[in-house]
Amino acid sequence: MTDKSKGFFTLPGEAGYEDLTLELAEKWGADVIRDSDGTVLSPRILTSGYEIYSTLCLIRGVNDWAKAHRDKLQQNFLMSDPVIASESTVTIDLLKGYFREQFEINCNDDPKKWWQVFDRTTGEEVPKDNWEFNRETGTVVIKNAKKWHKYTVNFLAYRIWEAISMYNHITNNWGDREHLMPIDPIYPETQEFILSHLEKWLQEHPHTNVVRFTSMFYNFCWLWGDDPEHFRYRYSDWGSYDFSVSPYAMTKFEEKTGIKLTSEDFINKGLLNNTHNVPSPKIRAWMDFINEFVVTFGRKCVDLVHKYGKKAYVFYDDHWIGVEPYSPRFKDFNFDGIIKCVFNAFEARKCAGVTGVETHELRLHPYLFPTGLKGEPTFKEGGNPTKDAKNFWMKVRRALLRAPVQRIGLGGYLHLVKDFPDFIDYIEELANEFRTLKSLHENDKPYTVPGKVAVLTCWGRLRSWICSGHMHEQPQLDLNHVNEALAGLPLDVEYISFDDIREKGIPDDVKIIINCGRLDSAWSGGDNWKDPEIVAKITEWVAAGGGFIGIAEPTATIFSSQYFQLSHILGVDREIGRTLSRNKYKYTLTEKHFITDEVKEDTDFGTEVDNVYAIDGETDVLAEKGGNVRIAARKFADGRGVYFSGFRFNAQNTRLLFRAILWAMGREEYINRWTCGNFNTECAYFPNSRRLVVINNGENRETTVINDDKGNRIEVSLEPYAVKILEI
Amino acid sequence: MTDKSKGFFTLPGEAGYEDLTLELAEKWGADVIRDSDGTVLSPRILTSGYEIYSTLCLIRGVNDWAKAHRDKLQQNFLMSDPVIASESTVTIDLLKGYFREQFEINCNDDPKKWWQVFDRTTGEEVPKDNWEFNRETGTVVIKNAKKWHKYTVNFLAYRIWEAISMYNHITNNWGDREHLMPIDPIYPETQEFILSHLEKWLQEHPHTNVVRFTSMFYNFCWLWGDDPEHFRYRYSDWGSYDFSVSPYAMTKFEEKTGIKLTSEDFINKGLLNNTHNVPSPKIRAWMDFINEFVVTFGRKCVDLVHKYGKKAYVFYDDHWIGVEPYSPRFKDFNFDGIIKCVFNAFEARKCAGVTGVETHELRLHPYLFPTGLKGEPTFKEGGNPTKDAKNFWMKVRRALLRAPVQRIGLGGYLHLVKDFPDFIDYIEELANEFRTLKSLHENDKPYTVPGKVAVLTCWGRLRSWICSGHMHEQPQLDLNHVNEALAGLPLDVEYISFDDIREKGIPDDVKIIINCGRLDSAWSGGDNWKDPEIVAKITEWVAAGGGFIGIAEPTATIFSSQYFQLSHILGVDREIGRTLSRNKYKYTLTEKHFITDEVKEDTDFGTEVDNVYAIDGETDVLAEKGGNVRIAARKFADGRGVYFSGFRFNAQNTRLLFRAILWAMGREEYINRWTCGNFNTECAYFPNSRRLVVINNGENRETTVINDDKGNRIEVSLEPYAVKILEI
Repeated sequence: MTDKSKGFFTLPGEAGYEDLTLELAEKWGADVIRDSDGTVLSPRILTSGYEIYSTLCLIRGVNDWAKAHRDKLQQNFLMSDPVIASESTVTIDLLKGYFREQFEINCNDDPKKWWQVFDRTTGEEVPKDNWEFNRETGTVVIKNAKKWHKYTVNFLAYRIWEAISMYNHITNNWGDREHLMPIDPIYPETQEFILSHLEKWLQEHPHTNVVRFTSMFYNFCWLWGDDPEHFRYRYSDWGSYDFSVSPYAMTKFEEKTGIKLTSEDFINKGLLNNTHNVPSPKIRAWMDFINEFVVTFGRKCVDLVHKYGKKAYVFYDDHWIGVEPYSPRFKDFNFDGIIKCVFNAFEARKCAGVTGVETHELRLHPYLFPTGLKGEPTFKEGGNPTKDAKNFWMKVRRALLRAPVQRIGLGGYLHLVKDFPDFIDYIEELANEFRTLKSLHENDKPYTVPGKVAVLTCWGRLRSWICSGHMHEQPQLDLNHVNEALAGLPLDVEYISFDDIREKGIPDDVKIIINCGRLDSAWSGGDNWKDPEIVAKITEWVAAGGGFIGIAEPTATIFSSQYFQLSHILGVDREIGRTLSRNKYKYTLTEKHFITDEVKEDTDFGTEVDNVYAIDGETDVLAEKGGNVRIAARKFADGRGVYFSGFRFNAQNTRLLFRAILWAMGREEYINRWTCGNFNTECAYFPNSRRLVVINNGENRETTVINDDKGNRIEVSLEPYAVKILEI
Repeated sequence: MTDKSKGFFTLPGEAGYEDLTLELAEKWGADVIRDSDGTVLSPRILTSGYEIYSTLCLIRGVNDWAKAHRDKLQQNFLMSDPVIASESTVTIDLLKGYFREQFEINCNDDPKKWWQVFDRTTGEEVPKDNWEFNRETGTVVIKNAKKWHKYTVNFLAYRIWEAISMYNHITNNWGDREHLMPIDPIYPETQEFILSHLEKWLQEHPHTNVVRFTSMFYNFCWLWGDDPEHFRYRYSDWGSYDFSVSPYAMTKFEEKTGIKLTSEDFINKGLLNNTHNVPSPKIRAWMDFINEFVVTFGRKCVDLVHKYGKKAYVFYDDHWIGVEPYSPRFKDFNFDGIIKCVFNAFEARKCAGVTGVETHELRLHPYLFPTGLKGEPTFKEGGNPTKDAKNFWMKVRRALLRAPVQRIGLGGYLHLVKDFPDFIDYIEELANEFRTLKSLHENDKPYTVPGKVAVLTCWGRLRSWICSGHMHEQPQLDLNHVNEALAGLPLDVEYISFDDIREKGIPDDVKIIINCGRLDSAWSGGDNWKDPEIVAKITEWVAAGGGFIGIAEPTATIFSSQYFQLSHILGVDREIGRTLSRNKYKYTLTEKHFITDEVKEDTDFGTEVDNVYAIDGETDVLAEKGGNVRIAARKFADGRGVYFSGFRFNAQNTRLLFRAILWAMGREEYINRWTCGNFNTECAYFPNSRRLVVINNGENRETTVINDDKGNRIEVSLEPYAVKILEI
């Protein structure tokens, strides 16, 4: 890498380490210095000529106001832990099992109006006359209970400790530092306070060029328990809207939409409305309502920032609920940039794919902290932050070949890097590499196979490049792995929903549909597969030449005698016990096939779906284990279907998926066009500049052959982790 | 074994081998000689002084009458293979994929009245005006079809080749021997013919003492396909009533019950009504109707047999549909005996448990055939029939310690044993052993732990000691393995249904309920677990001291936010993807517990249920794998719950289940009362005779200690496969 320049790099500065800050800013080519949670910037840094990013969270850090307006704290519904009636009177301690430092029962809004008590054995609500709330003891007493039935109470609780600062506080042992409370901007009084507080802040931070919001108002749902050892985190979902609820907002929502919501719409039998489940229309309407509110009030905040001549960036994590960067409203915020903390390729694509902002910035790992996410040493004895940085960068870099971002940066305590000179050198190299990759996208777009690949889920575009949270949080979700593979492949990828298909049909440029997930999940589709319109439209589209790829339990729902509703396209179905007496076709394994042509090692598909069988002799079974089909391919009229029993991201599987896509498209010949013969390496061709980037995704030396679009062979050798750029 | 006597043994005689027949009858202590399928008895044998059993199948072997009354052939509904409409007209070849030598379309009964055409994509019936049957081509043409929807036809087919003889014919290459057709006794004309034919047969068989019916009229459902290599057996279910259907019977049924059945009631979306699925009330009514008919007309046949001074036995296999030995009507047949072919212990218990007949007889394996079930050599070069016989006997013998049967016997070609003198000797030993074990039950009942164990399924008593077919046919069914373990344990076992609980509650003497199976199966219970009455009654019963043992997916149904509806008793639930965002309690493994106290080797539970988690800290997790709970125990008020993630029959697991039962009963001390310390051996104590039988279930020498009920230690050593009887 020789192409070196300056800029596009955000450095975390640190007061007390001014020399180091400025020295590294120079070495790494930074153009921006930021503060971090736990660090401040000194006057010398603020006036050093670098642009300054300052972090700001609007709904916390204002405890004086919060304490004076406790009825304006953020709240949510909770469901009490179930209690089984052994007598006709049942007493339920509402907060039992919950972390009482996070929640406080809302006694301000009439429980009889907002709460509900349920007999969970029958599923029926208990008449309001049959229960009473006792505010002194925090209990609900139910009378006339049916013996041996299970009862729960849906109740409102204020959050008295903001979740992210609670986490930081407890993790970093901040001791008796005051607990920050989250205020809810849904109320006009809160909005007025936030705007005046923001204006004051803007006036007090003249050196700040960019206000980085962390993020807007509502955190993802994170319910804590009172047993730190066994059950600290009761519930966490990065996409759920449970923390945006209040009687005031519900009233406004009803005025606007005519939909009356109850506590049970949110509690949903205790499931809550988690991102993995098929969302109800009511909850989609609620999300839309909150999104509109967050955009509308958020825009006022952004306008204020702009009024002071500063830019406004938003952090695509934490309090991002309602921000929805993939909603059509996002552009209306008028943000200047979006910053995303990234562990891997799909997170980089998630950031890069956001439209409506000029700047996309990645916050790279490792953070400059003594320890990593799981408590492993990073910037302390026993740590190897250089290796960590390389590995994270290898994951992220694949995505940057496909989609441009404008900036990268780091976060944390800068002084920690002092003892790691090789890290300091490596970040210089990494920053230069980033700037080079970034420059390739200028006035250019990397080659992709013609025809779009659409990932079909209930969420569609709204949850592009993401399920719910980071890959390491739900490593069992096959779609996480599929997203990761797709993030670095030479394909145009988009995310579509069942509603999209119902409303607009399948877009003309889509050549592949991928459906990946388990029964009744938002990812696989649940009851959407009972809709004849969906089934017939996709069947027709495949018959006309489309390619359908199903992974795990694609198109699964319990309807008719199939389980996979597109078994006629996938060529397989799954035995879940309903058809045990129906015997299964004895297939012969297809030893050689385009899709599996490069499989060398036994395929790792994770915890696979079992008991998958070929429906008849027209299905080619390409891989199996113990009589269970793992990979199948089938022609259906002019189209094709492919089935995988699971998926895990690795180099071989990424190639396998790419081949499956090409085969299902009927474009097998593209396997020899601008792709690396050695799947430990990947490449991207930029046609305008006629430049070919080749990357080595691993820690071994690799040699690869690339065929251009005229059949010429290009051989490239790469050192571990290396990137090469060739002029063609 | 020195206690030798004569009798209680049925020998298969063979014409042409009269000396051998009589010599072995003497050596083995036979009192009865039988014919077999493929053998006849000669006059010398018939007049040798032994009792004679003759096999007779009333509905086949009468082809002249069948051909003259083709509209009286047995029939059934079939569903055509689905066809996807690519145009608005769809032509369906009804018998495509079916074995046309087994089925012939019924053109006699009006298709428009009895058949139905379905759009399986919408689940709706196609109006009768929109389809036509063409009898020349055997096709149905559907017009106004919705493009890309899936269509099927439910139609009636006669069976033109009786299933069991078809199997024997094809397996044994009987070439151009005439195909036997099954006639349906539902019609008065057929009944008249069968009775006159039977009377003639009785007159012509003066030497026959026992008529062994094979069995009554309707075979279990066995649909064959036209692709012998890949898909010969399309469907087989030993308990389904599909082969008892006809328009005549449906009309009679409607007259009697007021219930109008359609083809779809039987086809059931293509699932048919297999034994593994939760039966519908309509199908239960149909089964009852057929059962009543089979008993009523069967009784006439039995009466005729009795009129001729002969006994009537029934074979508990093949055409047993409608016989239902566990129905209250069975005694009304007035059978003298029931004969069951047995592979293992639960089949022996299934035979022994039938009430309403005097004689229970087991047909032992191996049959005297050259090859076994899977084509492996038995009575030919390479075979070891003595070892086979020992192994089958070891499996069956456990059951005979617990429940008496009156007779055993063999089947097949006697001359094959000539080359296997050790087999001849071993059968002598086995027969003596049987007679000894049998004698122990006379005026005595072996000791069992006080309190009954109830297996709870949708079928209850009707499917006692059986799921659907032999263990080796559905080895994945955990309940098969549980039945096998229970069959040899010192427990009183009964089978109860959800309807029993609704109607009569849980019997007072039941101390343990076992629920074992997968979601929505007849074994686990399906929607019964949505019934608050079931959940509350069992909860109350456990709270009062009952023990509930759940295996695999016990109490599972998708209702409320649980999956296991008795998770509050089992202490665990299963994550199926609905509650991914809900975090799971971090349990600490309980290293030492009464239930797992004798586990030495890693427990084999087969294909276990995964993603099982402890619901809270009150559950003791006794075994786990990769964070998934395998064994759990929990106290619930005065009762207890136990969970196993699967089950496979072996000595260690049988002990594990026994311990779980004792623990859940709160009767742990019974582990040292009349049980063997070495679980490769088992024992039974007969209190009246004060005799203790100890058996070695394996091929190694074993020593075991037995504690009597006063705490005295009894040490016993046993040779491989041996049995010892001690006077206490």
